[in-house]
Amino acid sequence: MLYLLADWSTHFGPLRLFDYVTFRSAGAFLTAFLLVVFAIPPLLPFFRKHCVQRSARTDDAPQQKPVTPLMGGVVIIAGIILSTLFWGKLPERTLFVFIIATLALMGLGMVDDIIKTRYLRSEKDGVKERTKLIVQAVVAVFAIYALYKTHGAVTMQVYCPFSRQPFQFLPGTENIAVWIPFMKAPLCYLPLPLMPLCLIIMLGFNYAVLAGTSNGVNLTDGKDGLAAGCMVFAALAFAAVAYLHSHKIFADYLSIPYIPQAGEVGVYACAIAGGCLGFLWHNCAPAPIYMGDTGSLALGGALSLVAIMLGQQLLLPIIGFIFFIEAVSVWLQRTSYRYRNGKRIFLMAPIHHHYEKKGVPDPKLTIRFWIVAGLCALIGLATLKMR
Amino acid sequence: MLYLLADWSTHFGPLRLFDYVTFRSAGAFLTAFLLVVFAIPPLLPFFRKHCVQRSARTDDAPQQKPVTPLMGGVVIIAGIILSTLFWGKLPERTLFVFIIATLALMGLGMVDDIIKTRYLRSEKDGVKERTKLIVQAVVAVFAIYALYKTHGAVTMQVYCPFSRQPFQFLPGTENIAVWIPFMKAPLCYLPLPLMPLCLIIMLGFNYAVLAGTSNGVNLTDGKDGLAAGCMVFAALAFAAVAYLHSHKIFADYLSIPYIPQAGEVGVYACAIAGGCLGFLWHNCAPAPIYMGDTGSLALGGALSLVAIMLGQQLLLPIIGFIFFIEAVSVWLQRTSYRYRNGKRIFLMAPIHHHYEKKGVPDPKLTIRFWIVAGLCALIGLATLKMR
Repeated sequence: MLYLLADWSTHFGPLRLFDYVTFRSAGAFLTAFLLVVFAIPPLLPFFRKHCVQRSARTDDAPQQKPVTPLMGGVVIIAGIILSTLFWGKLPERTLFVFIIATLALMGLGMVDDIIKTRYLRSEKDGVKERTKLIVQAVVAVFAIYALYKTHGAVTMQVYCPFSRQPFQFLPGTENIAVWIPFMKAPLCYLPLPLMPLCLIIMLGFNYAVLAGTSNGVNLTDGKDGLAAGCMVFAALAFAAVAYLHSHKIFADYLSIPYIPQAGEVGVYACAIAGGCLGFLWHNCAPAPIYMGDTGSLALGGALSLVAIMLGQQLLLPIIGFIFFIEAVSVWLQRTSYRYRNGKRIFLMAPIHHHYEKKGVPDPKLTIRFWIVAGLCALIGLATLKMR
Repeated sequence: MLYLLADWSTHFGPLRLFDYVTFRSAGAFLTAFLLVVFAIPPLLPFFRKHCVQRSARTDDAPQQKPVTPLMGGVVIIAGIILSTLFWGKLPERTLFVFIIATLALMGLGMVDDIIKTRYLRSEKDGVKERTKLIVQAVVAVFAIYALYKTHGAVTMQVYCPFSRQPFQFLPGTENIAVWIPFMKAPLCYLPLPLMPLCLIIMLGFNYAVLAGTSNGVNLTDGKDGLAAGCMVFAALAFAAVAYLHSHKIFADYLSIPYIPQAGEVGVYACAIAGGCLGFLWHNCAPAPIYMGDTGSLALGGALSLVAIMLGQQLLLPIIGFIFFIEAVSVWLQRTSYRYRNGKRIFLMAPIHHHYEKKGVPDPKLTIRFWIVAGLCALIGLATLKMR
């Protein structure tokens, strides 16, 4: 809302800063950071009382780890949304879509965490995997439909790293052609009756992106500060991508589409990065609180929506490399176990447990994953220039 | 040296990439990172045998920490210099000045570390503080004279954050005026005979910058990965500043001076960041090796030379905030102890020990310092736009 202050800049010059998307992005980042940093200490006693896993509270197993409450993600998401409401241009419908979808996924994660803390004993229980996927599908369909209604053709494209041609699910009426990356000519020209098929493919693909990222972040959240730290790098990288999309000169220079509304998406991505960094302030080892599914499902979903809105879904496996390999490692392990007579590929999946079993000591493992996440975020940004 | 490949780009197009300073910066970063990451494990046994502090080897004190070798800095500096030789434009004399000054400071640190590991028992011993300052003065005078010879008026300026006017130590003959930050008109016009005074002030100021940064990094190097992690952020930020200085359009847009040779300085800063990140890969808690004075004195000196060459010395306390407060905390503590009848300001200086004594657990303390370092690096970059 603060952007309204820019209207008063004729009276007081520096207020014009509130019109700059870079200034508002920085504001969103710092606000979310400070909100989360200062909100957690007073809330800790509440979390300790109400949000501790039952499995950690029972006495029949030797207490392997100290009792750490879940659901810290509520604070992150609250910080992100408050900060976005402050610094974003609210008439922009994109932000509302993002906020609603994030809240819905947070709700899903919360139910999961509440079941874990109240009713069940094992960490593996909670909301069933199928239920999760269905709820994520509903959120994905809602969000993608709303983004399509708001941005039209923009959301029907997928950009590929290293390539200038986007893949277009639903080409405009002027040019009913399917472009794919790395090719200079359209792959084929579509007859109009095939349009619904394109829509279904787009929905399916973007649903896979959203569910994959959301669950990838969820799997990464298995060590103190691991998911929060990796998310800071990924969100900052996507904030930079969004800014480049929103800046006419940079977008032309990099030959990526110019999307004026992407600036607000950058503000949102900065708020995500700030919120996660604020949470990391407390969450790093030894952690007094975890984000839980409440945080990880919502953060993963929010990140994927940013990528979907920019048509940069294929950057997600690069910029969010850690989330990607965590998800892929689980999938590989399961597939291998099922089809190779119980043989495993990793000592334990997701992959951070594999390295843990191999003897990498504890903060070092997390910090190395952060280093990889930071490097991959930089590499992902670099691909924008190498087209 | 690889930039010579660009001459062959008429034969094979992609070779033109080697002419781009961004590509070479990324290459320098990754090369230094990989060199250090892969060089340390095979060298560890050597370091364990020869570079362990005597104080840690004696048996008269209870073994408080595991025996960790010093002098890992040799590997960082070797990685940085090799990577710079690969990716920098070698005819550029600036790079040679940087390399020689870095090597000289590394030599100073090495003597210090060798004395610690061979002859003395206490960690506080080693090269005397006065000797250190004298060697640093020699290095500073050599480096600043060489930079001045190469870059002339450029190195005679100091830019101030938030301000468009530089402070000019030695104004050009066309405009013999002293500009200071935040003022729109020159402060005064200088008569020519005062020039030697200007030179002395410039040398003194830049010496203070070099010695302050070098010793600040040295003081920061007191926890596993603390100095290396903070240095990654600071060096990356200065690499960005150097790139902006070297790019005509960006420099004009930000109204900072256009310095064509700054691109090579950016390559060097990227190599510093890469080398430190590679060292952090091993050095993070629990650390099997420390960089020692060998690394910290040289890295601090190299960072300050980058700032001096760009005329951005006043960004150092912002971008290198952690190094700055570590040095200031020691100075405050000593001053307070001396002039306030032994009263102390901090529980223990440098400041990371203060928080340690206050009960912040171990990896958390380091990670929080990194978060502050990262935030300050971003804030430092932001000041370039807010002029």
